[in-house]
Amino acid sequence: MAEKLTSAANEAVKAAVRLRDSARFRRESGRFFLEGARLCADAAGSGCTPAQVFYTLEAAERYADYLAVLLPSARRACEIAGPVAEKLADTHTPQGVFGVFEIPPSGGETEPPGGAWLALENIQDPGNLGAISRTAEALGVRGVVLSGCCDRYNPKAQRAAMGSLLRLNLIGTDDLPSLLTRCAQRGFRTYASVPDAGALGVTQADFSGDVLVVIGNEGSGITRRTRETCTGLITIPMGGRAESLNANSAAAILIWEMMRGRVK
Amino acid sequence: MAEKLTSAANEAVKAAVRLRDSARFRRESGRFFLEGARLCADAAGSGCTPAQVFYTLEAAERYADYLAVLLPSARRACEIAGPVAEKLADTHTPQGVFGVFEIPPSGGETEPPGGAWLALENIQDPGNLGAISRTAEALGVRGVVLSGCCDRYNPKAQRAAMGSLLRLNLIGTDDLPSLLTRCAQRGFRTYASVPDAGALGVTQADFSGDVLVVIGNEGSGITRRTRETCTGLITIPMGGRAESLNANSAAAILIWEMMRGRVK
Repeated sequence: MAEKLTSAANEAVKAAVRLRDSARFRRESGRFFLEGARLCADAAGSGCTPAQVFYTLEAAERYADYLAVLLPSARRACEIAGPVAEKLADTHTPQGVFGVFEIPPSGGETEPPGGAWLALENIQDPGNLGAISRTAEALGVRGVVLSGCCDRYNPKAQRAAMGSLLRLNLIGTDDLPSLLTRCAQRGFRTYASVPDAGALGVTQADFSGDVLVVIGNEGSGITRRTRETCTGLITIPMGGRAESLNANSAAAILIWEMMRGRVK
Repeated sequence: MAEKLTSAANEAVKAAVRLRDSARFRRESGRFFLEGARLCADAAGSGCTPAQVFYTLEAAERYADYLAVLLPSARRACEIAGPVAEKLADTHTPQGVFGVFEIPPSGGETEPPGGAWLALENIQDPGNLGAISRTAEALGVRGVVLSGCCDRYNPKAQRAAMGSLLRLNLIGTDDLPSLLTRCAQRGFRTYASVPDAGALGVTQADFSGDVLVVIGNEGSGITRRTRETCTGLITIPMGGRAESLNANSAAAILIWEMMRGRVK
């Protein structure tokens, strides 16, 4: 029998809310919070240990399949009352399933070994970080380098990522230019994507072999040092009004062009 | 001197809030509501008459340039107090500039005359409608057919569109299959975009000349009748996990592929 939780003032509930809202608390405690039956099941399936799972009685019936995946590996499972679910929920139409997971240890790789890579520099919106990761995974990008971005364990980033931030090969760095230099020395083409009409159009660029495309901050783009370190500058030629692609649409087109020759 | 409005219970304020929240009230009154200095100025610049402009004293200083564009054509301008701005605001960080605009009369065209067109069928999320329109405009699509979509004057759609829904050549229809049939008779290639691996890959499709790509509902895709009416089915071949592109990323790639041969 699962433990029952009826008070939103319970310590476990308060800790889960802090994990939801504070990147610092996530870092300090080595845990993160997710909302949603499928997302929680995906996280468990990707090797993240569920420290706690919270679910309403209604959700236990409706999402029995996902909970069957999730609960066996959960250290603690709590059936929660409506007010507790309301306290935990961060979405408009909550499903009543929530989980606290252990942040997995960093993967072995610290440098892109080869293939087609993306690097995200200073992406600040969690929704953008998630959506770009989702596109990268869908199109078969080998891995993503993260430099100065918002916290990947932010619940909004995780929701937009649909699990991809937990499955993708991710490398974090606080010195992107040095990483790019080392990649270039090992034969990578490294492209900075910029809005300059004078840069090489993406349809002209060579994305074969070992290649890495850098996408910069939503407003200010790629930093000067990173831009100067890349082996080339690329841009999306536009037939319409310039500078009016949003961050996700531009990223989707860049990733697609990088992968275009690798898919049929 | 502008009129001053200090009460959120004022009739003009209440009407603006209704225009913000109700598609039906927008249709019945022939007006729509926008928030944001640049968006309002863009609307006026696109030929929409501002029936009313509301702005805070702080906004009058900060957004003087946009208001200089906006106010001369406004039938009524009101300086508003903080509580009125709070009542009108629908964003996290309101700028304090709001406008009620006349919905312009429909354009002359009722059929795509030629060139590269997009058709959106049953797109339900206003943010998606806006973002896809923004991409279409940026990449130089000639116009967009709307069938069964959410209201284009929804404030969330307008914000995501960054003015593109007011500038693009838009044709509304409640019978997309018939419009597609007539287009095909006039020599258009009409493509239904589908997630079927068996469909023609977008890199193999012929997007030259007169062409129209249909994008369907976020969850259920394109309706059977529309799909059967199109002259071809196309799909985005994916190297990674299938079916995991979000609606906006998929649309960006489809529009890009349609326009790829037309840009340098």
